[in-house]
Formats: sequence, C-alpha cells, structure tokens
Amino acid sequence: MKKHNFSAGPSILSEYTIRNSAAAVTDFEGTGLSILEVSHRGKEFVAVCDEARTKVKELLEVPSGYEVIFLGGGASLQFCMVPFNLLNKKASYLDTGTWASNAIKEARLFGEVEVVASSKDANYTFIPKGYKVAEDADYFHFTSNNTIYGTEMRYDPDVNVRLVSDMSSDIFTRPVDVSKYDVIYAGAQKNLAPAGVTLVVVREEALGRIARAIPTMLDYRTHIKKESMFNTPPVFPIFAALQTLKWYQTLGGLSAIEKMNLEKAAILYDEIDRNKLFRGTVAVQDRSIMNVCFVMADEYKELEAGFAAFAAAAGMVGIKGHRSVGGFRASLYNAMPQSSVEALVATMKAFEKQH
Amino acid sequence: MKKHNFSAGPSILSEYTIRNSAAAVTDFEGTGLSILEVSHRGKEFVAVCDEARTKVKELLEVPSGYEVIFLGGGASLQFCMVPFNLLNKKASYLDTGTWASNAIKEARLFGEVEVVASSKDANYTFIPKGYKVAEDADYFHFTSNNTIYGTEMRYDPDVNVRLVSDMSSDIFTRPVDVSKYDVIYAGAQKNLAPAGVTLVVVREEALGRIARAIPTMLDYRTHIKKESMFNTPPVFPIFAALQTLKWYQTLGGLSAIEKMNLEKAAILYDEIDRNKLFRGTVAVQDRSIMNVCFVMADEYKELEAGFAAFAAAAGMVGIKGHRSVGGFRASLYNAMPQSSVEALVATMKAFEKQH
Repeated sequence: MKKHNFSAGPSILSEYTIRNSAAAVTDFEGTGLSILEVSHRGKEFVAVCDEARTKVKELLEVPSGYEVIFLGGGASLQFCMVPFNLLNKKASYLDTGTWASNAIKEARLFGEVEVVASSKDANYTFIPKGYKVAEDADYFHFTSNNTIYGTEMRYDPDVNVRLVSDMSSDIFTRPVDVSKYDVIYAGAQKNLAPAGVTLVVVREEALGRIARAIPTMLDYRTHIKKESMFNTPPVFPIFAALQTLKWYQTLGGLSAIEKMNLEKAAILYDEIDRNKLFRGTVAVQDRSIMNVCFVMADEYKELEAGFAAFAAAAGMVGIKGHRSVGGFRASLYNAMPQSSVEALVATMKAFEKQH
Repeated sequence: MKKHNFSAGPSILSEYTIRNSAAAVTDFEGTGLSILEVSHRGKEFVAVCDEARTKVKELLEVPSGYEVIFLGGGASLQFCMVPFNLLNKKASYLDTGTWASNAIKEARLFGEVEVVASSKDANYTFIPKGYKVAEDADYFHFTSNNTIYGTEMRYDPDVNVRLVSDMSSDIFTRPVDVSKYDVIYAGAQKNLAPAGVTLVVVREEALGRIARAIPTMLDYRTHIKKESMFNTPPVFPIFAALQTLKWYQTLGGLSAIEKMNLEKAAILYDEIDRNKLFRGTVAVQDRSIMNVCFVMADEYKELEAGFAAFAAAAGMVGIKGHRSVGGFRASLYNAMPQSSVEALVATMKAFEKQH
C-alpha cells in the first residue's frame, strides 16, 4: 500500500533525493566506494559540499558578506551558539512555542534576554503582534515556523535590530530577505536532508564583536574559515542535501515552491473548515502551511481514536498530533506531493460519511 | 577494478553495514518508508537506537553506572564538552598529536591544564612514558590512537586519577577496562558508522560536580536523561552503527577483532621493515595497528610520487600520508579485510622489483 508520510520531522524527502542517496550508498559518483566510506577531503566530496553551499546561496539569494556552513549537533545546539557568538549585553526573543522557549532558556546563560511577547498563555495558538523590540538589543530572535503548534511567520519581521531566526521547519519554503538577518539556522530534517546536519547562514560582519572566549567548535568563524571542513562534517546528510537543493532548482526556486505549498495547505485547511468532524487549532491568520494542526470538533471528540485508525488503514503515516496540542498534525513539507494531501482529504471525507 | 579503501576516515565500513544501510534507504524494516524520512520517535527507530546502545554496552563490557549516548557535532565538540562537564579546577592531558593538542586548547578555556608530557618536539613519533599525573587533577585525558601520526596506546594508562579518552580511531578494536574511565568518546567515522554521530560512554557519578552553568545541549545529563532523544539524533548514522555493532558480535567480539587487527598490522609492518624502499615513521613499540605510517627510505625519496601512482593504479585508495608526516598512511580499521592488506603488500613488493 502507498504510504503518505505526514511526519513532522524527520520527514518526507523527495524521491529524487532518496533515489540518488540510495545509489550513492552503493557507489558514490563512480569512485567504486560508498558515500558512507569516502574521505571528506577527497575531491569528489569537497565538490559536493561546495556545490551544496553554492546552491543554498542561489536559492535563498544570499547577499555578499554572508557565508553558508553545515554543522552537526542539530538546531538545538544553535540555541547556545547564537548567543555565544552574538549576545554581547542583551537580546530580544519572541516566544512562540517550545523551540522558541528553549532558545530563550539558553540565551539567558549569556546575557540579558528580553522576551518581547509570548502566546504561551494561549497554548501558543497564535503569533503575538504589536511587540516592540528594544533598540539596544544585539539581535531579535524568532522561530519562523512552530512545528508543534502549527503557527508560522511567513514574513521577515520589521523591527529595528538585526534578525536571527530558527527556520528549521520552513527554510526553502518561500523567498526570504536574507539581508535583514545576522543568522538563519535550520536543522535539515524537514525540508533538506536526513537528520544529522544543520544549515547556518551567517553574516560575517556580525561576528567577532563579543569579548567572551568561544570554544572553537562553537565559533562560527571556525567553520566559515574552513568551509565546513574544520572537522569531519556529516558527509552523507550533506550529499543528500545537495540532491534536495538540485531538485528545488528544477521546481523553479522558492517562489514556485511557495505557490505549491500555499495550494497544498489550502486544500487541507479548506477541508478542516468544511468538515463538521474537525476544527483547526490556531488563529487563521497565523496558520502554518508546513504543519497543519487539527482536532476533532467538540461534539465529535470520541471519534479521535477511530479517525486515527481509519487514516492509518488508508496509508496515512505520522498524523498524530504532538502531545502539547493533541489531535492531529499533517506536515506538508516541500517534498509532500499534492496527491498525498488529496488522499488525506479524501480520507477525512470518507470518515465524515460514516458518521 | 576492486578498490582497497585505506582512507583514514571517513573510511571503510563492513559490507554488512553498507548493504543493510543501502536497503534501509529504500525501505526501512518494512515500513514502506526510507530510513531517511522516518520519525526518530517512531517505535522502529527507537528500537534501533536502544539496541545500538545495548550492543555498545555488550561489546565494551560497560559496567553499571555508565550510560551510552549518541551525539552530533563530532569528537571535536567533545574537546569542549569534556571540560564543560568535568573540569572543576585542573585537568591533566597527554599531548600525543594534533587532536590531543586541540583537546588541550579547549580545556584551557575552562581551568588549569597540566600537560604531563608531549612528543611534539619529535613530531609525535612516539608516545611519552614515565609521566606523572597530579593527584588533584579532575581527570587525565589522552588520545588512544593518533590517526595522523600512527601511534597508539593499546592499554588503559595506569595513573592515579580517572581517565578520559578520545578513542575516535580505535574504539572497538580491543577490549577496554571501562571502569577506569569517566568518559570515552569516539567520532563514528572510523570503526562504527558514516560521519555524523559521536559515541560517548560516560560514568554518571562523574557528572553534576561542577559549579558552572552548562548549555543544555553540551550537558551530558541532558542526553542521558532523554536516551539520546533530547533533540533529533543523527538517525541514519545510528542505524548504520547498529549494523556494524551486530557484525562485530558475529566476529566474536573485541578480543577476536583485536587478534585479527594484530595479524593485519603485522603483515604490513613486516613488509615495511623488510622492503628496502620503505621505512616506518614511529617508534616500533608505539606503532598503531589502525594507521600505519611509512615513507620512502632516505635513498629512495625520489620514488614517492612513483609509488603513489603505482599503488593507485593497483586500486589502493587513500594511502597518501597526512601533510604533517608525508609519505604514506594505510588505515587498517576493523572492516579492512586481510586480503586488502595483502594486496597492498604485493604492490609494495612489485614496486620494489622494478627498482
């Protein structure tokens, strides 16, 4: 049976990425060796890493003065690397969910943290607006997409300090004005590659302005200087990332991808709003087009387990909601085909007919 | 043509590991999904991670009171994580090469570092002996195998404080008395898995004894508590690691593996000592059985490029020595078959006949 992979992350990758990655595990570019056992300093892999960095710059239209690096450790490691490198006295953070909150916790180890707004009291069902960011903040940090709660900021906030963003779950899903950012970081395992590599886009002039000693591996300058080869990088995830980036270019780049994503999300949200059994969990204007959270309508709460089983039997994978929200969550990352979204909608309609 | 992969790392993996990893990229344990796109919290992968940790404990005979965790970031990140977690006032380090020296540099950010001995002045061609470790040191750190220089400490040093070791290039190559250690860490990309995961074995009672605040991701307790699932772990490298660990058990465990490694290394060292064209670079008693470094004998120096080309034409991959040593380096990790070592020796003999 065809499986429709709605997992929140690690999550669906394009067939192009998986096919080429599988081939490279057997034979990497005619070397007679597996991608799993080649030297990261061999010319074949150095070319892969360079091409991946170049394609990130092309797709995101990264201005000059920025560098692209690939690191291990996950986006959670960036929660401390960002303040290690950028927080001199004070930083401003927007609290929009679990990951934003974790980032705030780490920043507090390094200096004063101003939380400009939080939607925690409403279980993060909306994105706060109308907040003010202190002019003397070293940067303003936000989480562009909240995977757990299904809210998203599909815009570059207009504040009076430099931006830093965790874009783990919506990088490459829309054009971004990189020039407003000092750092953009993203764990790869949603829209780029298998788990194990984190993409960081960093403005070089933002670095070297703090007094504290930074451990070598946590200093962005280490990795910029060595072009992500200071130590052994996560070779295979970077290879897979390059495949995804190539595929994104064949799709027409980020504007074309955004259009597809908006269409896919609309199909599912329309059904959630139409179908009497379900309701969305977040403010309509803040709905994520990546992670669509919904629960049973109040009068049909007892049908939750029934729908879970019904959807699983129809090949839907990974739609259980996070325990913080409950219900269901369908993640519609770039690689998710519209046909799978339609299959989920058909399942929701079929379930409705039974009740 | 059959390629013989002598790369220093990332490096040869067993056919068993590569075959099973390739299969899982296409279909992970009958889920109908690729290992690259499954949730790390799905029951199938949680079972993989748990089994991998258990097999590490079995193979290394890890005593109770220790935990096994899988982290991202590489062994280089451990250079700061170890002192972050363990260095209260003073630590002792043995300087046996580039990586030991890098570890010392990081430790100095956290407290007093006593370098008990160094062979740097002799270009790290031997392992210092007869050193004394201060009784009040929080731990004694050493690099058990020096990948670049080809020296190895195939024993657990007998000092009067707890041990910490970077075993990146010789973990699982011999039995180790884990009870003498507070931390053993190893980047996976030599004897375990593709690059992207680091194995850490840590004694739980050694933790929580320092006053400094530790960023969450750099605190071993975070990962112990969440069984390596605090954030998304490097899923695919952990899957591949499990395959290698299973294969090690079928080989008969670490004593059997050590015997094979000693035999393989002896075949190559015997040829280096016999063949008039070559000479080894390190003190005989400190020779690594993992990384065999050799150069052209003084009177045949002009043949270096010729031998490099001759060996490459015979299918030898990755035998160029590190620039710090020059000449050649053949890495004989666990997955290296004896037949490949014999092929290299035959190539050395054939080249000798021509000259």
